[in-house]
Amino acid sequence: MGWITKQNILIVGLGLMGGGYARGLKRIGYHIMAIDTNAESIRYALENEIIDEGSAETNPQLIRKADVVVFAVYPHLIKPWIEQNQQYFKYGIRITDVTGVKSCIVYDVQSILREDVEFIAAHPMAGREVYGVQNSDDGIFHNANYIVTPTEKNTENAIQWCKDLGRLLGFRRVSVLTPEEHDDMIGFVSQLTHVIAVALMDCSDNTHLVDYTGDSFRDLTRIANINEKMWSELFLMNKQPLLEQMDNFINEMNTLKEMLEKDDKQGLCEKMILSTKRRALFNKK
Amino acid sequence: MGWITKQNILIVGLGLMGGGYARGLKRIGYHIMAIDTNAESIRYALENEIIDEGSAETNPQLIRKADVVVFAVYPHLIKPWIEQNQQYFKYGIRITDVTGVKSCIVYDVQSILREDVEFIAAHPMAGREVYGVQNSDDGIFHNANYIVTPTEKNTENAIQWCKDLGRLLGFRRVSVLTPEEHDDMIGFVSQLTHVIAVALMDCSDNTHLVDYTGDSFRDLTRIANINEKMWSELFLMNKQPLLEQMDNFINEMNTLKEMLEKDDKQGLCEKMILSTKRRALFNKK
Repeated sequence: MGWITKQNILIVGLGLMGGGYARGLKRIGYHIMAIDTNAESIRYALENEIIDEGSAETNPQLIRKADVVVFAVYPHLIKPWIEQNQQYFKYGIRITDVTGVKSCIVYDVQSILREDVEFIAAHPMAGREVYGVQNSDDGIFHNANYIVTPTEKNTENAIQWCKDLGRLLGFRRVSVLTPEEHDDMIGFVSQLTHVIAVALMDCSDNTHLVDYTGDSFRDLTRIANINEKMWSELFLMNKQPLLEQMDNFINEMNTLKEMLEKDDKQGLCEKMILSTKRRALFNKK
Repeated sequence: MGWITKQNILIVGLGLMGGGYARGLKRIGYHIMAIDTNAESIRYALENEIIDEGSAETNPQLIRKADVVVFAVYPHLIKPWIEQNQQYFKYGIRITDVTGVKSCIVYDVQSILREDVEFIAAHPMAGREVYGVQNSDDGIFHNANYIVTPTEKNTENAIQWCKDLGRLLGFRRVSVLTPEEHDDMIGFVSQLTHVIAVALMDCSDNTHLVDYTGDSFRDLTRIANINEKMWSELFLMNKQPLLEQMDNFINEMNTLKEMLEKDDKQGLCEKMILSTKRRALFNKK
C-alpha cells in the first residue's frame, strides 16, 4: 500500500493536532474524514473545508470507508475506542497516532488489535499553546521533529509508510526510535522542561514582580501555560522516565546550591563553562 | 544640578553596558569619556565616535573633568577604584553604576566615599548574550526596566537625577526599590532562572538529543550560555536571597515529584492550573 491520494483518511479527535493533519493531508489531495465529540469542531471544519466528511458521533459508515485511521485524541481514549469500533475497520488498514508518550500505549493497542490491521505509532513533536481545530495549522510541522516508534510487531512496509506520512506533512526531520528510547528522550526534552516551568511559576507568589521580569523569566515560564488534563495524563503515563529526569535535575540544583553555600566560585564557574559549551551545540540548529 | 548637555560623563568600563550608555548619552549631546583597561575597546569606541575621549589607563586628567561617573565594570572593582581615584574627583559630582546586585555594593561604596560626592545606585535590567563595546546598542534599553536603589544617604535631588538618567537612556519603565527589595526580586526573576538553565543543561549529558529538542528546551536553556566570571560573582554577592529562592524552587520540584510518585493527578492538575493562571498575568505585558 503506497500513498495513493484516493485513500480515505479518518482522523479521530479533531483538535489542534488532528486539524493540522487534516489541513496538510487534504491539501495533498486525500479524502479527509473526522470524528470528534465536539459538534462545533466538526461544523467549523466542514464549513472551512478542512475536512470532507465528519461526524460528532462514532459513525460506523465513516469508519468503514477509512483506509487509514489517525488517532489525535487523549491517550487513554485510544484503546477503548479501538476495542469498541475495530469491528467496522476495512480489512488490512493502517492506524497511527500523535501521542506524546509511547511505551504505555503502543504495546497495549497492538495486543488488542485485529490481526489484519497494523498500528504503527508516531509522535509529531509540534504544538502550540492554543487549542482546537480553529487554531490548527500544518505550518507548525515545518520546523519540527517527527518520530516513528515501531515495535517487533511492525512490518518494514508500515514503518516506511509512517515515515512517508511525516515527510508528506512537511516535518523537518523524520526519525525512528524504540518506544523506550522515545520515552526517555521526551521525559527530558519535553516533560522535565514543563515540570520546571510549572515549578518556577508556582514556587512563590511572584505576581507582584510582573513589572520587573525580562526575557529570561518569560522564556522559562512560557510553557507554564499548560493544558492540565493533557499534561497530567502524559506525565503519569511516562512516570518512571520522568521521575529519573526530575531526580537528575534536582540533584544538580542541590549541587549548585551547595557550591553557593560554600562560596565555591571555581565550582560554579566550571558548571557555567559546561552549560555554555553544551548549549553552543544547540545554537547551531 | 539638572541635565545640562555640556556635562562631561566618564564611563568606567566600556563593555556592552558601558557602550550602550555611551551611545545613548552621546546622541543626546553629552561629552562622553571612557576608561577601560582594554586598549582595543577604547580605540574602537574613538574610531566609531561612540566616545569623545578615552584612555586605557586610569587617567587623572579625564577623571578631573568628569561631572558624572558611571561604573560599568565588574562589581568587585568599583570600591577599590573609588578608593584609589576619588582624590581626582571634581567637587560635588554624582556617581552611579549598572551593577546587577545592590545591597553588597551600595552601602560599602557610600561608606568610603568623599562627603561632597554622592553615589546613587541603579540597575538597568538589560543585556545580551554577547560582550564588548563592539556589540553595544542602546536599543536594548527600550523594552527594559531601570531600577534606582537609593539608601538613607541619598538626596531627593540625586534620586530624581538618576531616574531622569534612566528616562534619557530610553528605558521603558523607571522605578525605585530599596537595595534589599531589589536583591530579593533579582534573586528570583534573574538569578534563579539562570541557575535553572545551567542545572538543566548540566544535569545529564544530553548532547545526543540535540536533534530532538524543540522550542521548549531551547527557550529554557538559552541563558545557560552564560559569562561565568560575571555571573558567579553576582550569585555570590547575592548569596542569601538566591539561596532562599533556590530552596523555594527545589521544594516545589520535590512536591511535584511526590505527586507524580503517588499518581496524584488531581494535585498535578491543580499545580498546572495555578501556573497557567499566574503566567497569564505575564502574557499581558
